[in-house]
Amino acid sequence: MSSSDIFISETIGTAVLILLGGGVCAAVTFKRSKAYNAGWVAIAFGWGLAVLAGAYIAAKSGAHLNPAVTIGLAIKGGIEWSQVPVYFGGELLGSMIGAFLVWISYYGQFRAHLTDPEVLAAHNGTDGLVDQAAAPKAGPVLGIFSTGPEIRHAVQNLATEIIATIVLVLAILNLGLSDNGKGVGPLGSLLVALVVVGIGLSLGGPTGYGINPVRDLGPRIVHALLPLPNKGGSDWGYAWIPVVGPLIGGAIAGGIYQVAFA
Amino acid sequence: MSSSDIFISETIGTAVLILLGGGVCAAVTFKRSKAYNAGWVAIAFGWGLAVLAGAYIAAKSGAHLNPAVTIGLAIKGGIEWSQVPVYFGGELLGSMIGAFLVWISYYGQFRAHLTDPEVLAAHNGTDGLVDQAAAPKAGPVLGIFSTGPEIRHAVQNLATEIIATIVLVLAILNLGLSDNGKGVGPLGSLLVALVVVGIGLSLGGPTGYGINPVRDLGPRIVHALLPLPNKGGSDWGYAWIPVVGPLIGGAIAGGIYQVAFA
Amino acid sequence: MSSSDIFISETIGTAVLILLGGGVCAAVTFKRSKAYNAGWVAIAFGWGLAVLAGAYIAAKSGAHLNPAVTIGLAIKGGIEWSQVPVYFGGELLGSMIGAFLVWISYYGQFRAHLTDPEVLAAHNGTDGLVDQAAAPKAGPVLGIFSTGPEIRHAVQNLATEIIATIVLVLAILNLGLSDNGKGVGPLGSLLVALVVVGIGLSLGGPTGYGINPVRDLGPRIVHALLPLPNKGGSDWGYAWIPVVGPLIGGAIAGGIYQVAFA
Amino acid sequence: MSSSDIFISETIGTAVLILLGGGVCAAVTFKRSKAYNAGWVAIAFGWGLAVLAGAYIAAKSGAHLNPAVTIGLAIKGGIEWSQVPVYFGGELLGSMIGAFLVWISYYGQFRAHLTDPEVLAAHNGTDGLVDQAAAPKAGPVLGIFSTGPEIRHAVQNLATEIIATIVLVLAILNLGLSDNGKGVGPLGSLLVALVVVGIGLSLGGPTGYGINPVRDLGPRIVHALLPLPNKGGSDWGYAWIPVVGPLIGGAIAGGIYQVAFA
Repeated sequence: MSSSDIFISETIGTAVLILLGGGVCAAVTFKRSKAYNAGWVAIAFGWGLAVLAGAYIAAKSGAHLNPAVTIGLAIKGGIEWSQVPVYFGGELLGSMIGAFLVWISYYGQFRAHLTDPEVLAAHNGTDGLVDQAAAPKAGPVLGIFSTGPEIRHAVQNLATEIIATIVLVLAILNLGLSDNGKGVGPLGSLLVALVVVGIGLSLGGPTGYGINPVRDLGPRIVHALLPLPNKGGSDWGYAWIPVVGPLIGGAIAGGIYQVAFA
Repeated sequence: MSSSDIFISETIGTAVLILLGGGVCAAVTFKRSKAYNAGWVAIAFGWGLAVLAGAYIAAKSGAHLNPAVTIGLAIKGGIEWSQVPVYFGGELLGSMIGAFLVWISYYGQFRAHLTDPEVLAAHNGTDGLVDQAAAPKAGPVLGIFSTGPEIRHAVQNLATEIIATIVLVLAILNLGLSDNGKGVGPLGSLLVALVVVGIGLSLGGPTGYGINPVRDLGPRIVHALLPLPNKGGSDWGYAWIPVVGPLIGGAIAGGIYQVAFA
Repeated sequence: MSSSDIFISETIGTAVLILLGGGVCAAVTFKRSKAYNAGWVAIAFGWGLAVLAGAYIAAKSGAHLNPAVTIGLAIKGGIEWSQVPVYFGGELLGSMIGAFLVWISYYGQFRAHLTDPEVLAAHNGTDGLVDQAAAPKAGPVLGIFSTGPEIRHAVQNLATEIIATIVLVLAILNLGLSDNGKGVGPLGSLLVALVVVGIGLSLGGPTGYGINPVRDLGPRIVHALLPLPNKGGSDWGYAWIPVVGPLIGGAIAGGIYQVAFA
Repeated sequence: MSSSDIFISETIGTAVLILLGGGVCAAVTFKRSKAYNAGWVAIAFGWGLAVLAGAYIAAKSGAHLNPAVTIGLAIKGGIEWSQVPVYFGGELLGSMIGAFLVWISYYGQFRAHLTDPEVLAAHNGTDGLVDQAAAPKAGPVLGIFSTGPEIRHAVQNLATEIIATIVLVLAILNLGLSDNGKGVGPLGSLLVALVVVGIGLSLGGPTGYGINPVRDLGPRIVHALLPLPNKGGSDWGYAWIPVVGPLIGGAIAGGIYQVAFA
């Protein structure tokens, strides 16, 4: 498969992932949304099924959609190391496009929310998805774009992201269906999607489960760029954790796989 | 397969889709329903599993159940263009039958709801699924039949419908299981159904996700025809958006598929 | 396969179906249950996954678990008519064993509930699953055993049961996996289970979706027999509806299949 | 397969099972978790999908993850009796590692919770998952590690655990996919995971569904060992029930299988 084929497929697939994943955060956050306040079960299924949709759509390129998966597969030997930057590029671009499409899809809701005096008064840096301690840093809709910790502590937040990503990548590598870089197949996509639902339910509590560098970084860049009124800060101080943690987790998972299961 | 086989299969399958889809809206809306107030997770799963049931039942004809899917498959080359009107006809008729069966299934609930002074007093054109701004237009049970926007703005509502439909049709086209017009197979049906759950959770917030012209239009016609007391208007001013948006989205998805994945 | 093999398999499978199905009703009804008040989504998934568990376990005999399915398959030609009574017998016995096991599993909860003065005072014939109008008939735990209507009206309740059962049986018949009486296979079991979740979410509102004669009748008999304090009536006046309705629905579905899809 | 391969695979798989399973209990228990109070549907899906993740990851060794499953398979003849202790060892060690990782993942949340005066004052031996009657025995976070009864009664609690485990093991044995000790395959993993969701929804109410000796014992040991402030007792008086009950249930299921389905 050519590099451009990989790039295009990963871009579109990751855009869908973030469109649906960011979408469900928007859906439960905004008062003028039919899914307002639908709860964490909605969030966890929303993100998991976002993986499902993205995985089908990017099946051509193996549907990594996540640099941590790309790293894990490269260590396992499922793809060439020379392809890694191509995957990374598509994944990052796609994540930004996805975040942009969330904004388009919820355009009126963003505006109503960010100009609602009640929201602004109540907002002290938290939007329900971001910790109080982040008050001066996180704007009232940042949680729709990026993750943030409930209790801000770098080592601990990093540990949570590493552990959660190990589970994700280990599950993907053990499907035994992705060796040829062609993704995990329709059934495998479903299984991975449901594992993501499970990770969200179980390990999403402390940090909102980035478990994917571009899932957090791409939308955060878009948050910084978009002309949103009263959007507040993009919390760049936290931004390295959901990038570095998942990369470490993906590499550890690749190592565990080689040692224990290969 | 003969045109009449296609027509009958799509009619029955789409009737089941709308029966279960409209059914879950009725189930959560009516006080005298065991699922009263069951929330958006119930709605999203209800509609997704409605797709599942309809897809099995109409497997013979490929289970399009949706003109946007028919359009996307025609562009991809999965069916003959000459069959398109047959699919459209079965889909529209089926959607009307389905809406009618919702009314039969919840007959007593409709009557109790629409003659309840408390409901009528509280209703100002919104039934919990329809925007305040729609007050003079949408009756208190229209949300069980058709979609309506939370924030009424034609361009934006259209954009949301287009984006959500692109995700749906792109996922269906990429399953790679539907080339021969025989539908997506049992596993494919499940995957599509779950993508629909995901779209509902993530992109259903602003407009209630029509993503299917007949899903909205057929039941709206039935709403206009049924002898319901105090039913209010059918909000025809909005009716073109969930028809035109999904058709555009399906066509765009067909184009993206041809360019990026074929 | 011998009649005794069919009988044993259907008995065990239907016992599991009712054990898990009645179990989830108990789980959400009792205050001293960890799932107290878990809502309709829990009920719908609980019953659907009860079908899943029963279907695996009774795969040997085709996992009908439901006389309406047996009727539909007999009309389609999937089983011999002479086997029908064997299936019916196993299904009815299994449903009674299942209801008995619910009582064992929640023994302390039943006793605490039925001797709680607060529960008894509040109970006026309704247990949250049964209509007010049924007050003099339905005891405070009958909803854990059998179904009951929200609005009591024989014709309408019958219509809802018929319609919901048609959807169920039509989906099963169209899986195209059950022709040889060997059940629907592992994937088919999952699909049927999810259709049952969907029917529960969408059409369970008015009557609590019997859609299976023995699902209602067997546990109602057990309710009548069990030595429960203050258990109240078994609402025999309603009992014929979830028996007759599903049988009619199964037969209609078999007919539709023969005409439209065979 | 060598004993060390089995041991390593079961250890890692069971660690993932308990990490995600204990994780969801932590996620809904702690105020400073994004999934706080997400309800029993979240718990049931969290545990079921924990099985899914563990099952993929330990597919190499058949992914028992549960001594009750090991017993049932040994009786059925799926594995050698000489391998049973190897499975048991890996399962117990894995469950302890998993519980430890829950603590790491929610480190700050544990500390905040256990030093919150409001939590400590409100806690009278119950943590929302453990019965009032257990007050002097169960600490405020024990429910994140181990199960506990809503109504404490040895015979009854044992009966519930036996019944629930019979359903689990009977479903696994009847998948017909696990004869060769290689686990249930990707689709089988999904089916078993969903059966576990169903058991949780339906039979989890009275005892919190141990249905797996190490799922309860391993984390309880870790609870006893961890340096948690104000952690309270580990309720050792109850500890034998979720060990003995599931072992009996697994053996009974193996026997039923041999008699009725083999």
